[in-house]
Amino acid sequence: MSQKGILAVVSGFSGAGKGTLMKALLERYAQQYALSISATTRKPRVGEEHGREYFFLEKDAFEQLIAEDALIEHACYVGNYYGTPKSYVLEQMEAGRDVILEIEIQGALEVKKKFPETLLLFVTPPSAKELESRLRGRGTETEAVIRDRLSRAVEEAEFMEQYDYILVNDDLDTCVQDMHRLIQAQHQRCSENRDFIRQMKQELNEL
Amino acid sequence: MSQKGILAVVSGFSGAGKGTLMKALLERYAQQYALSISATTRKPRVGEEHGREYFFLEKDAFEQLIAEDALIEHACYVGNYYGTPKSYVLEQMEAGRDVILEIEIQGALEVKKKFPETLLLFVTPPSAKELESRLRGRGTETEAVIRDRLSRAVEEAEFMEQYDYILVNDDLDTCVQDMHRLIQAQHQRCSENRDFIRQMKQELNEL
Repeated sequence: MSQKGILAVVSGFSGAGKGTLMKALLERYAQQYALSISATTRKPRVGEEHGREYFFLEKDAFEQLIAEDALIEHACYVGNYYGTPKSYVLEQMEAGRDVILEIEIQGALEVKKKFPETLLLFVTPPSAKELESRLRGRGTETEAVIRDRLSRAVEEAEFMEQYDYILVNDDLDTCVQDMHRLIQAQHQRCSENRDFIRQMKQELNEL
Repeated sequence: MSQKGILAVVSGFSGAGKGTLMKALLERYAQQYALSISATTRKPRVGEEHGREYFFLEKDAFEQLIAEDALIEHACYVGNYYGTPKSYVLEQMEAGRDVILEIEIQGALEVKKKFPETLLLFVTPPSAKELESRLRGRGTETEAVIRDRLSRAVEEAEFMEQYDYILVNDDLDTCVQDMHRLIQAQHQRCSENRDFIRQMKQELNEL
């Protein structure tokens, strides 16, 4: 089966538990996966490190990357650029690691357009009520922030159908397992096994 | 997640071990799967039973099914009709069972055209050499039959790319497991979860 890495994009509602999910996946299967780190022009927050949460770049440097076509996708949010450096992703895939991008919908669809074999995963709680109760349960956000997240969820839900798979994050362990299986199954796709098929055809002809 | 059954078509080279694989899958997950039984106009062989290996029909009765659009797919091989009765497949899917059709490539592609969400699985041994040695290893076939199977494999290999997934049948247990996972993963496809997505959107709007 295909030894080359898979490119998987994970998006989902704020409050769906993407962060916890990614952390658990990467801890459990450290050798298998590489998490792509985005570049951004926004300023680091307290506790954030260059090269860990983000590559923090000046606007000029970021625009240079755009000009060189060195980003798989990029977008602008609230006046700041965010983007995915191409070289890291391609290197990791060549080395046989499955690369995960945790990015917004706009970027996800851009990646899919450029690389149609990308696996698009959408993480959601089992219901809207549960999403709301998780957002409130954090106890750290103001009512305005919660309303803002919920109204963004309404917008984001419009794009769910454009993803390949839905990951319902009800029980974390089950969800990590499902995510791992979905990504690993991708290695068996015919489109990922063109070399195997070519070789099989050639060998059959030589028998 | 989607409670409706998945339609999965399994094809593959003669000698790839499809029969053993299907038997093991159905034994292991009896409640989950239903194996579709084909209809045919060929005469039953010794030991074959109507409604177990095939539904053995007269030519008239079969052509009646075609006329009534009661077959998902049908084809003619060596002067005999073979086809998949639609009603059984749809009933089982409605009841939440995943239905497996073990059919030839021509029929598989016809099913995919009619039901684009069908999962097409292609079973292959790990190499052409292994295919040959399995065919010879049976010790029951003449050289002519073996050559015929191998030359059919050459033709069939041309269609591998049109399948969704490749199942390499090296170790039977692993292959059964892979097959089960691929079919189960299909329940998480967005296209299988339109009701869930619709409901999520509605609930979000009502919050």
